[in-house]
Amino acid sequence: MDSVRKVKVEKKILIANEEYACKNRDFLAKRKIPCLNVISSPGSGKTTILARTIRELRGKIRIGVIEGDVRTDIDAQRIRTTGAPAIQINTDGACHLSAAQVGDVLQKLPVDELDLIFIENVGNLVCPSAFDLGETAKVAVVSIPEGDDKPAKYPALFARAQALLVNKVDLLGVVDFDMDRAGADALKLNRNIRIFPISAKTGVGMSRWYDWLEALTNRRGR
Amino acid sequence: MDSVRKVKVEKKILIANEEYACKNRDFLAKRKIPCLNVISSPGSGKTTILARTIRELRGKIRIGVIEGDVRTDIDAQRIRTTGAPAIQINTDGACHLSAAQVGDVLQKLPVDELDLIFIENVGNLVCPSAFDLGETAKVAVVSIPEGDDKPAKYPALFARAQALLVNKVDLLGVVDFDMDRAGADALKLNRNIRIFPISAKTGVGMSRWYDWLEALTNRRGR
Repeated sequence: MDSVRKVKVEKKILIANEEYACKNRDFLAKRKIPCLNVISSPGSGKTTILARTIRELRGKIRIGVIEGDVRTDIDAQRIRTTGAPAIQINTDGACHLSAAQVGDVLQKLPVDELDLIFIENVGNLVCPSAFDLGETAKVAVVSIPEGDDKPAKYPALFARAQALLVNKVDLLGVVDFDMDRAGADALKLNRNIRIFPISAKTGVGMSRWYDWLEALTNRRGR
Repeated sequence: MDSVRKVKVEKKILIANEEYACKNRDFLAKRKIPCLNVISSPGSGKTTILARTIRELRGKIRIGVIEGDVRTDIDAQRIRTTGAPAIQINTDGACHLSAAQVGDVLQKLPVDELDLIFIENVGNLVCPSAFDLGETAKVAVVSIPEGDDKPAKYPALFARAQALLVNKVDLLGVVDFDMDRAGADALKLNRNIRIFPISAKTGVGMSRWYDWLEALTNRRGR
């Protein structure tokens, strides 16, 4: 297959995805529920971040989670231990969630009892950023052991995300990571990105992230 | 675009890729040079592993590197500081290297002066494993901070790789990681996979990996 044809096909796939994304966006807008599409490499700590966030915001923000994984429901099980509703999507090999997959399960969440929905995408720093799921905003996660060059090397996500969580700051000093470099590279791609250095393990830095989430849910007039 | 049509298109892309992969495999076989396709999440330490391997095998195995990244030539620059030849491919957004891209640059390496070629794929635990580059074998890398559930959650790579480097063992005890679980899950997918717990930072465990590389280059009768 020549590359012109391949590009045309990719464009069609993205256009079809966009139609489903619009439906999801309408569904969420009618219910005034913000929805965050959380994207990162495998193992950067997405599930740990979500589990801690759910626990520490209990009584303030009611959170539901859609979990995307190639295989297993390990992550949904971890989320359910917090008491929050979680639905697992298995992509069975595919490298990102599609808007159609999210649309299929969105109604299975008790949406009328929620203030915020997180979608935890498949662990992948490249592909998921190209697929709109109808989310309110994308949230990028990068962790200290991955190295400070990730925004420069994988720019698409950081250019599109509204927030960047730099997780595992408890490992600063144990492994090399120049926070100024990572932050500057992210801001060069996207001068509006909000950067939160955090440790979902120790809790350091999480309160600013929670403030951002509260502002997001309040903006929606709930 | 309906999903049946999408699957057909994906199949065509894979078939086209396979033709280029065969050409690469012929090119390498004629010159009796083994070639390893190194695949992992972003930030698991691929480049650090390759740089240390090149330095420590100097005088024994002459190594050349093809670097794949979405953007920047940071990795090729790091490899060149070892004195080894390195060629950077930028995929400009794409999430994996294709056999055609590798074929384009393979002849730019001084192949007649090399005993082994590493291809460092785009940091991505999902997509690259589906695309044969004509390599002799795939090598998976997973690092301790990513967590021990990665073989279970991203099975395709581990099912196809001949070797698994479990990197950053210097962080065992600092972060949670059950080596037995990760190893058992990988072996369940692929009972022939060779597992090497290593630290490319401290050098721990690297000698067994070097023995494996030496056996690989010797098998080829060089």
